[in-house]
This record gives sequence, C-alpha cells and structure tokens, in this order.
Amino acid sequence: MSETLHPWKYIKDQIELENADSIKHYLDELEANDVAAAISHLDSDERSKLLSLLTPEDAAELIEDIPWLRALHILEDVNAQDAAAIIHEMRSDEKADFLSEMDEVDAKAIIDELEAEEAEVVRQLIEYDANTAGGLMITEFLAFEDSQTVGNVVKNLGENAEEYKKYNLQYIYVTKNDLFEGVLNMRNLLLSKPNTKLSSIVLKDALTVKDHMPLEGLIGFFDTHDFYGVPVINDFQELKGVVLRKDLREAQNEQVTTEHLETQGIVGGEELRTMPVWLRAKRRLSWLSVNILLNIAAASVIAVYQDTLAAVIALAVFLPIISDMSGCSGNQAVAVSLRELSLGVVRPFEMARVWVQEVSVGLINGVVLGTLIGAAAWLWQGNIYLGLVVGVALMLNTIVAVSLGGTIPLFLKRLKVDPALASGPILTTVTDMLGFFLTLTFAGWMLERL
Amino acid sequence: MSETLHPWKYIKDQIELENADSIKHYLDELEANDVAAAISHLDSDERSKLLSLLTPEDAAELIEDIPWLRALHILEDVNAQDAAAIIHEMRSDEKADFLSEMDEVDAKAIIDELEAEEAEVVRQLIEYDANTAGGLMITEFLAFEDSQTVGNVVKNLGENAEEYKKYNLQYIYVTKNDLFEGVLNMRNLLLSKPNTKLSSIVLKDALTVKDHMPLEGLIGFFDTHDFYGVPVINDFQELKGVVLRKDLREAQNEQVTTEHLETQGIVGGEELRTMPVWLRAKRRLSWLSVNILLNIAAASVIAVYQDTLAAVIALAVFLPIISDMSGCSGNQAVAVSLRELSLGVVRPFEMARVWVQEVSVGLINGVVLGTLIGAAAWLWQGNIYLGLVVGVALMLNTIVAVSLGGTIPLFLKRLKVDPALASGPILTTVTDMLGFFLTLTFAGWMLERL
Repeated sequence: MSETLHPWKYIKDQIELENADSIKHYLDELEANDVAAAISHLDSDERSKLLSLLTPEDAAELIEDIPWLRALHILEDVNAQDAAAIIHEMRSDEKADFLSEMDEVDAKAIIDELEAEEAEVVRQLIEYDANTAGGLMITEFLAFEDSQTVGNVVKNLGENAEEYKKYNLQYIYVTKNDLFEGVLNMRNLLLSKPNTKLSSIVLKDALTVKDHMPLEGLIGFFDTHDFYGVPVINDFQELKGVVLRKDLREAQNEQVTTEHLETQGIVGGEELRTMPVWLRAKRRLSWLSVNILLNIAAASVIAVYQDTLAAVIALAVFLPIISDMSGCSGNQAVAVSLRELSLGVVRPFEMARVWVQEVSVGLINGVVLGTLIGAAAWLWQGNIYLGLVVGVALMLNTIVAVSLGGTIPLFLKRLKVDPALASGPILTTVTDMLGFFLTLTFAGWMLERL
Repeated sequence: MSETLHPWKYIKDQIELENADSIKHYLDELEANDVAAAISHLDSDERSKLLSLLTPEDAAELIEDIPWLRALHILEDVNAQDAAAIIHEMRSDEKADFLSEMDEVDAKAIIDELEAEEAEVVRQLIEYDANTAGGLMITEFLAFEDSQTVGNVVKNLGENAEEYKKYNLQYIYVTKNDLFEGVLNMRNLLLSKPNTKLSSIVLKDALTVKDHMPLEGLIGFFDTHDFYGVPVINDFQELKGVVLRKDLREAQNEQVTTEHLETQGIVGGEELRTMPVWLRAKRRLSWLSVNILLNIAAASVIAVYQDTLAAVIALAVFLPIISDMSGCSGNQAVAVSLRELSLGVVRPFEMARVWVQEVSVGLINGVVLGTLIGAAAWLWQGNIYLGLVVGVALMLNTIVAVSLGGTIPLFLKRLKVDPALASGPILTTVTDMLGFFLTLTFAGWMLERL
C-alpha cells in the first residue's frame, strides 16, 4: 500500500476529504515517531483542519505524540474555543506548560474559554517557573479532610472510580483545615472500621517539598528517597500538587537537550523546521549578531599588526588555523565542564581545581598541536623561524584556551549567566585575540629572519 | 560542623583512620550528588581503600551514586576478587555494562571470580550491543513452566519472597519446554484452584521484542504500548530477559549526552576530570589532530592567493571572521538536524526537504551578516569595493554553510558515520575553503579598486 510508504500523503488526502474516522484509525496504528514525522509534512492550514476534525480527546492525544514546540504552534493557530477544548483534556502540568509558553493574548483567550475552576487552577500554575516543583507538579491528586471517616473515603473512591482512573493513584493525602496533614496507607484504609476518622490513621511524618524548590533539589530528593511522587506544599502549608519521579526525568532530559542546542547557538533551546522561516532566522541571528561583533573585535588585533603581516604574508595562512584550533581545544574543555556541572561533580566555586586539572591537558595538547603546525610551517616555507613563531603561538594559546574553557562555565554560573549560551562566544573571542596577538608579536620580534 | 562544608575532607580522614562504620553512616546521610562530588576529590588509592572498607553491598550502592565512567575506573583499580563481590550485588544490566566496557583482561579476571551460573549469564549479556534490547534488558525475571500448578507457583513465591523483592515484579512469565509461552495475570493466579495448570490460565497473546531490537525500535514500542516492561526473546523463542520502560528513558538520556559531547569533540562521549591526564589528552587529541589537518587543508587556499592578499593586506583581517561566522551559522543548522534526527521528525533520506528549509534561513541570515561585515569594512577602510567583496563573500558562504549544515548530518547518517562526531569538522573545512576562495577571488577581480 502506498500509504504505508508515505503516511503524510495519505493523511493529507484524508484531511482534504474531511474523513475524520479514517484519520483517527490511521493515526492510532502509527507509532509516535511516525505520527510526528507525518505531521511535520502538513502546512499550518492542514494541521488546524486536522485538529478540528478530531474530537478534543483524540486531538490532545495527537498533541502528545508530536514535538512540544510544534504542538505549541499548532495550538496557537486554532481558535481559542477549540484550543480550550483540547487543553481541557490534558494533564494539569501540560496545560500549564502550553499556556505559559504561548503568546499572552492567545493564552488569555484560551483560559477565558475554560470553566471557572479549571481556569483558576491554570492561572495559579502558570505563575510557577517551569523548573520548580510548582512548575513540574500535577494537580490531579486525591486529598480528604482528616475529619472524614474511612467509610466516606471508600465510598467516594468507589463512586468516582472511573474519574480517578486518570489520576496517578499511588497516594491519598489528608488535610486539616485545608492544610497538608499527611498521607494514608492503603492497607490501613482497608483494614479500618468504616466509622474511623482519618485523623486517627493518617501518617503525619510524610515528607513534602516546597513549591519553589528547584529541579536540582528535586533530583536530590528522589535520589535519596525511593518514592513515586512527593506532595508539594506552599509556604502556608497548603497542598498544591504532586511531583512524580517520572516527570522529573523528562525535565532533566529536556534540560540536557536545551543546553546542547544553546552551546551551538540555538537561543531558547529548541528549533523545529516547521517554525516560520522569519522566526527561525531571527532567533539564530540574535546569537550570530553578537558573535559577529565579537569576531570583529578579535580580528581588529590583526589590523593593529598589518605591517608585520604585510612583511610576512605567509602568516595570513596560519591566523585562521590558530584561531580555529584554539576554539576547538577550548570548547572541548567547555563541554566537559558543562557536563560536570550538570552531574554535580564540580561546583561553581571550584575554579582553581578545574584550572589545575585542565592546564595539564592544555600543556600536552598544546605541545603536540604546536609541534604539528610548526613543522607544517617549516616544511612549507623552509624557514624554521616561521615554524617557531606559529608553533609557540599555538602552543601557548592552546594552554590558555583549554584552561579558560574549563573555568569559564563555572565563572558564568557564579554570575548567574547561562553558561551553555555564553561560554563559547566569550572563549573564542578571548583566544582569537590572544592567538592573533601572540603570532604577530612573535613575528614582529623575528621580522628579519622570516 | 566542618564536615558538612567539605564532605570529602571528612571522608578522606575516615578512610585514613579505616573507620568503616562512620564512613557508611556518613555516606548514607549524603545525597547522591554530594557523594559523587566527594568521591571526585579522592585519589585512586583512597577510592580503592574506601571500597575495600565497605561491604560489597554498600560498595555496590556507592557505585550507583557516582558517574558511570568514574565508577568503571574505580572498579578497574580494585582487585578482581573484590570487584567480583561488588559486581555480584548489581542488577544484571549493570553487571554487563561495567564488564563490557572494561579492559578485556580485567573483565575476564572478574568473571572468573563469579559463580559459574552468574558468570555464564554475564558472558551472554556482554555479547549484546549496549543499545539493543539484549543490552538494555535485565535478567531478573520470574518464569515458570506451563506444566506447573498454581499451587506450586504461589508456594514458590511465598518461600522466596525475600529474594524476589529485589526483582521488578510486575509480570510473571510462562514457558513451555523452555520457550516463551505467555504471561500470567496476577488476578487469575490468585483466583484459580491450586491444582490448576499454568497452561490453562496463561495469556498467550503477550507481546515480546527480539533481543537484537535497537533502542529506536524499543522507544517506538513503549510509545505505542503502555507497559512497564516487555519480555525479550531470542531467535529461538527463548525468554532472555525484560526491558523496563524506565531503563529505556535512561538510555535515551545517555544518548543525548553522548551526542552533545561528541559534537564538541569529546570522542567516546564522556570524559571526567578524574581520568588520567594522559588519557584525557590522548582522547581529545584524536579529534583535534584530524581537525588540524583539515584546517591546514582549508588554509592552503589562502596560500594559493598570497599575491592578492599581499596587495590588499586589509583582507587578512576579514578571513578569520568569514571562516568563524560561517562555521557558527552552519553549526546551528547541524544542531537542529541532529535534534530532528533523534526526535524522528526528519529521516536520513529527506535531504532535499531539509535543504529547501535551510536555504531560506541561510539567505536571510547571509544578507544580514554580509551587510554588517560589508558595512564594517567600508567604514574602516573608506572603500565601498572592499565592503562589497567581504560582504558578498560572507553572504554566499553563509547560504552554503547553513544549507550544508542542515544536510550533512542526514548524509552521514545514511553512510552510517556518526553525525555528531563528524558533521562539525567536515562542515567547517568545506565552508572555510569556500569562504577563503570567494573572498580572495572577488578581491582578485576588483584588485585595482581596492
């Protein structure tokens, strides 16, 4: 069948035919990657039409299968009423993720379409930073006042079994005057007489986390405690939600990805090729335009030494090599530092220790690379002094680049500047300048021998 | 207390004093990150001594808390007998991970110290590729022959409750003549008479995966099926293990990290600063030394045009800028392609599609950056033709760099070359050469006006 070869063509046709049933069945058969790949072939009109053909529930399921940022753009494109119906079907943390990242006007229009109670919960959730307990928690949890009886709770569970199925029911919480009190043990619940008050069987030593606890703290918490989830309370001891272990791992994964893309100059940490061309170009340019200014500043060092360069034009061949190789060596050290920072095996204040660890690698690699480039220069021009100039310059510059590369991320972290985004440009500017300066200064000293 | 400020100093002292109990209690109190940070301050003798002071069980727990590669090096340093005792306490997939990455002689010595049955299992496991079902599965599962009765199974479960606690007991499997037959529903097990044969209550439509299924396939499987784990069979239908959903997520996380480090030139995808300096230097050099050769090749273009450059020495200022900026623009596109490849929203054969999507971004950014650099050149030298030469060169080179950057990872993937490791060096070599060529050729055409 041709549709198995090109799922998107088949889906395109069915959207054209407004054939809701066959689309639904076809999507159900596909694996998540294939769904994502197929949707990426549709244009924005087709995507909006696809969502309107599906029920809100099916549309929410589809949204889950496609990359987050694309899903966001699709939701922004449909009308507020349809978007609200789809968002209503999502888990609380996903609702908040989408609405807090949307254009504010779009988000407000959608929230206004939600029921009052749901809208209120969402408004509270989007106030939290994404990488805090409040931003990561779900609000689907069960809590009963401690004045309730076991009988009431069991009855309630039975009556709402269908609805509660959607919840991740590992724990039942108990509140007292609306403040968090503790957790119920399922076995105690089942083995107690119906008229027992929850206050007499609640376990009061339950651990909680505060809603503003950052991701790193939560990772530490779940490393130490073997729980599926932990209740989240605010400063007034009110129970606000539950952070699940599995959602944490996802958040961590996202953080690694974002960091990676940022080191390569993708500001904002995510880009998909279905985003409008102008937006993609603008986002990339925001990083490139800073970079070109830094580049011009670095290259101005060459301008200062034009006379030296004019006297020994062969040096012009080596300047880009020295600049590029120092950047590569330094960025290796940056990558290791970013990794060690996120693993927690190095702390921002340990700059001296990292410097010592890097300078020895820089020394070895500087000697090797300097010798290589020096030998190449000597062989090419038959002038050992040229070899010495470029070899020693690359050697020294590599040592500086590697030890700086190791420490800059720690330094930026201390200054609360995003090390993934800024380390590379700062490093290469400094090492470019120094590389040009060393090469041309050494050349100036030896001018009559070159 | 001073030890809360510097846990590693306290641990160092206690190792010196051979104070096993206080180390054990102290480590229990620390969170995993802090344990990892503390261990990174010990030298290799202290680490070996620490492991020998702890029971194998505690040592295995400690190993879990520290970064994988460091743990590997620590295990390599202790004697085979101690290492075997520690490895015996680990989960099967971790045993295999460590032993397959170790020096072969070390691994053999340790396996020889294990009991015959355990050694046999480990030998089988290390044959699998790490990112296949066989490499990711655990062998701690429960399976009974279908000729057994419900009574026997329940009795066996009761008698071995303590041991089975260590297993992830979501499923009980049934075999027939040692071949996989199906899965038991716990409810059926509890509600059946003791003399019922398993063959009459086994669910035979259970889904399985083959042991050589790659990570991508498993991710697809778990996206479609809401299971905790899936049984793994070999080509003969023998049940070999279970892949758990949670282990998959970890493997995926590792893959993202490895890819990131590789794009920055960390070959092998992981480096920790506690590795010996020579090893770190060598690993980084293996990538740098290829890069310097590519750099020399690219810069040789400048050598060809030395006369043009000597005539307009100001151009030497712009060559490193053009080389660096094209690299940055191209690497942004590389990063997006690597990301889209791993998300599965783009396939290796879709090079034409990606090219079209990138060339428009390249065009916009090329015009902007080319105008910027052209204006800078014009202002600096008061010569509009110099501005034209460098501006147009950077513009064209940016368009090529961006569209190449988007497609190279797909092309390398088709050739089965690791795109994370090779895309950057290939891209920058091509765009450096082209950048130098364009700038110096245009300058040659306009020589009398510059």
